[in-house]
Amino acid sequence: MLTLYDNWDSGNGYKVRLLFAHLALPHRVVDLDTDHGATRTPEFLGLNPNGKIPTVVLEDGRTLWESNAILSYFAEETPLLPSTRFARAKVLQWLFFEQYSHEPQVAVARYIRRHLPAGHPRYAELPARIEAGNKALGVIEQHLAGRDFMVGQAFSIADIALYAYTHVAADGGFDLSLFPAIQAWCGRIAGLPGHVPMLKGPPGAG
Amino acid sequence: MLTLYDNWDSGNGYKVRLLFAHLALPHRVVDLDTDHGATRTPEFLGLNPNGKIPTVVLEDGRTLWESNAILSYFAEETPLLPSTRFARAKVLQWLFFEQYSHEPQVAVARYIRRHLPAGHPRYAELPARIEAGNKALGVIEQHLAGRDFMVGQAFSIADIALYAYTHVAADGGFDLSLFPAIQAWCGRIAGLPGHVPMLKGPPGAG
Repeated sequence: MLTLYDNWDSGNGYKVRLLFAHLALPHRVVDLDTDHGATRTPEFLGLNPNGKIPTVVLEDGRTLWESNAILSYFAEETPLLPSTRFARAKVLQWLFFEQYSHEPQVAVARYIRRHLPAGHPRYAELPARIEAGNKALGVIEQHLAGRDFMVGQAFSIADIALYAYTHVAADGGFDLSLFPAIQAWCGRIAGLPGHVPMLKGPPGAG
Repeated sequence: MLTLYDNWDSGNGYKVRLLFAHLALPHRVVDLDTDHGATRTPEFLGLNPNGKIPTVVLEDGRTLWESNAILSYFAEETPLLPSTRFARAKVLQWLFFEQYSHEPQVAVARYIRRHLPAGHPRYAELPARIEAGNKALGVIEQHLAGRDFMVGQAFSIADIALYAYTHVAADGGFDLSLFPAIQAWCGRIAGLPGHVPMLKGPPGAG
């Protein structure tokens, strides 16, 4: 069976879980304790030499990593990836924007506040990450004015990729009330049939 | 005509120039002085609200930004993007690895050393960027052992994306002699028919 190596608190992992829910794709999840070296073991580095989740192992044993590459692979030829060449490129544009300009600020601020003890030296990074993250959120806010979804008229993996860390940006110290179009878009996504929320704890913990 | 907004010293811009050379794609280049605010003007932000080069404007006026999305768009249905679904996903995996784990270290170290004056506070970032960049280069080195190119048996946009900043990593303080498979791969790419080198100055400067 398709296997997703994951961490329950990861937005990058959640992207894949949310896609799999929308596609109703059977899979098993292996939840790894990423805070305590579970992605640095020789066994895991054999699956993903970059030592990160999410990583998927297909039924035939082939591996694929990088959350947005996983989204692209499984969304192909589904309604979650547009069929025209230019629209597909715009989806990729937003996926790369997410990984370069958004995630390193919005997700990393959340990581620092949720996974590092108070007083850790990395808390000094927060003001710069909030400033740069607000810039990225501003780009999304401007784009969403008058639109329902990021690309074209339909929900796509561009929305999934950006929603994952955006909807929990408050965890990182961001104030989403400054971004009303983003807030409306988050509500729109959470109301879609097939939606699943982010996890509140490890799977199976009840 | 297809227009590429670019900066001559940018590896992200060079990716697109190298692809266009291999595809023999007619285009014009607008070289912007990115060190002095040319990507923060209202006019440019109207093309790319994230204020970055490379940005392309198609003949019909539509815009596309994010270097690796541009590569993906123009490589589609050419020999520079594999035709099978899984191989295309592996190309994307390496493109996202490049933007998240490689470029922020290898390119940013080069940027600091080439574009900021000696003594600038950002020079303090260099040791951590060299360490993390060497980790990313190590992932590529391991992958290239016994392979000619990053994905499958053929040169693709995965090679173009990773080559752009890797082959000039010494500019950022990296020692490529530690990575013999990468050095051989760089030589292989530079020897391909249609290859063009990175620029040494603004286009037209002679």
